[in-house]
Amino acid sequence: MATVIPLEALSKRKETSALENLTALVAEDIAAVNQLIVQRMESRVEMIPRLAGHIIASGGKRLRPLLTLASTRLCGYQGQRHRKLAASVEFIHTATLLHDDVVDESELRRGNASANALFGNEASVLVGDFLFSRAFELMVEDGSIDVLRILAHASAVISEGEVHQLLTSNDSGTSEQAYLEVVRDKTAELFAAACRIGAVVAGRTSSEEEALRTFGLNLGIAFQIVDDVLDYSAKQERLGKTVGTDLREGKVTLPVILAIHRGNEAERAFWKRALDDSNPREGDFTYAQNLLLRHGALRDSIGRARHYGAIARDALGVFPESPIKDALLDVVNFTIEREY
Amino acid sequence: MATVIPLEALSKRKETSALENLTALVAEDIAAVNQLIVQRMESRVEMIPRLAGHIIASGGKRLRPLLTLASTRLCGYQGQRHRKLAASVEFIHTATLLHDDVVDESELRRGNASANALFGNEASVLVGDFLFSRAFELMVEDGSIDVLRILAHASAVISEGEVHQLLTSNDSGTSEQAYLEVVRDKTAELFAAACRIGAVVAGRTSSEEEALRTFGLNLGIAFQIVDDVLDYSAKQERLGKTVGTDLREGKVTLPVILAIHRGNEAERAFWKRALDDSNPREGDFTYAQNLLLRHGALRDSIGRARHYGAIARDALGVFPESPIKDALLDVVNFTIEREY
Repeated sequence: MATVIPLEALSKRKETSALENLTALVAEDIAAVNQLIVQRMESRVEMIPRLAGHIIASGGKRLRPLLTLASTRLCGYQGQRHRKLAASVEFIHTATLLHDDVVDESELRRGNASANALFGNEASVLVGDFLFSRAFELMVEDGSIDVLRILAHASAVISEGEVHQLLTSNDSGTSEQAYLEVVRDKTAELFAAACRIGAVVAGRTSSEEEALRTFGLNLGIAFQIVDDVLDYSAKQERLGKTVGTDLREGKVTLPVILAIHRGNEAERAFWKRALDDSNPREGDFTYAQNLLLRHGALRDSIGRARHYGAIARDALGVFPESPIKDALLDVVNFTIEREY
Repeated sequence: MATVIPLEALSKRKETSALENLTALVAEDIAAVNQLIVQRMESRVEMIPRLAGHIIASGGKRLRPLLTLASTRLCGYQGQRHRKLAASVEFIHTATLLHDDVVDESELRRGNASANALFGNEASVLVGDFLFSRAFELMVEDGSIDVLRILAHASAVISEGEVHQLLTSNDSGTSEQAYLEVVRDKTAELFAAACRIGAVVAGRTSSEEEALRTFGLNLGIAFQIVDDVLDYSAKQERLGKTVGTDLREGKVTLPVILAIHRGNEAERAFWKRALDDSNPREGDFTYAQNLLLRHGALRDSIGRARHYGAIARDALGVFPESPIKDALLDVVNFTIEREY
């Protein structure tokens, strides 16, 4: 690691290049998926594409549909069925984002005004339902009952995870196990399903389906842990990213759980108050960051994420070497080694 | 109609007996559906069955699953597949009720505290999502892509109708046509799908599928129009039913549209103010009832409902006489001739 490139520049390059590599390998597919997404959010009711377009455009890296596309290609599939299914996965994800923002009363999503802030909670709930139904329509067009089973089940598990998370909100006594279960359900299950359906479309063996499920599930857990770390990251703050949302919303995430377990009485009292307080005090966030640093909570959370990343990487062992496989392995590394 | 039975008693008897007859004819089926409903709302997350149970128990007459059961039996089907699908239809309906109450900020549902009032909007949104996913899991277990297509499409149309309704809320310039389109989408489409899948399960011809779709769609439109009439009904008010909700929520329903079209300037100004006003004034509802009476708006709305009821009844003409058919025809009459 002896390099003269400044760390921040390196990290930025690493970050973009891992996903860019993967995107480049499925460039035609992802272009088709983007087109499908635009087509299928059409409606006679003009507000629907406007609202759906807002969140989909503001919308991230298309990581989940990319996983579906890449997993299918990893399995040697040459057709185009996976495109509709990748769009379907993105619609499910978008629907949950819309409902999440309503539940969390978020004003911002990825630094932009959230759909509920712009269009109201009512429309966000209903357009979420619409996208969810459209996701199923896309799956039905594909016609695979196995895919439908996997994604219907994933959708039910996601809602269970969201309700579970709602119940642990503001509860500074949340255990690491409860946290992991929520993460698995609300985030990792869709990653798992997105990958797994690749093997189903390609008609591969159940052991390959299981390998991709394992890959997606553990990548998803690692992804969410790191996301939760980044929300307290001083570096992210310097880069102008939104931080501090989880503390404000009273979300009890892994770094906080570690800090609570390792802290003294006074510190626990702080966390209890800060997580419970609907009107957080000036300086709460900075003090929280100090506690996390003092107890190595961010560092050790990343350590936990590495564990899941390792499981994900090993899961791909059953697949022969290929550029797609390398790119997927790089995505695991990128996911975890984002600067915090 | 020379009878000595008091009108109210007669109406009450008519009302219960039409649905009771139908329920009795599919008694075993509906018992199995109720069991499935309880089973399938189970979750590791204990709040889910509690919240779902609340709305399902407070829950009405099971009209939609009854329609699925009866339509399937009308087609001569002897198996049990329709039970899961009827439960699925009820779950979709329940999910939309939960989301509706959040969107409308309703405190009451059928005279009881609504789920959002008891458990919060957040949980209601998420448990709605859960039930919706469970609905698809049930369909997937059944395995018919045709049924999945019909219900996925119906679900998308329902959300479109709900968004459309949201946009026409508080708009006293809403046309009868726009009202009908909303009713068709948000209510009648699920009635249509619930009936139509009966023919699909029974493997009947597409003309029978179309007949049942026509029956359900027009019954659904009639049902919603009458529901909208009952919300202004003096008799319902005397019977202790909840009335006045639509005016309070600024919903522009058919009786109101007729009264607006037939009213003078001053009356239109009243409607505009009353529908727009988030804090309705004392006496608004009584004055609205007077205007509706003066212009025959409730009576003529029921007249419109009779039109759709007639289409529904005629649609069943392609099916041979049977007790199930008679009971379905009675349901149309009961739906429309509820006292207002």
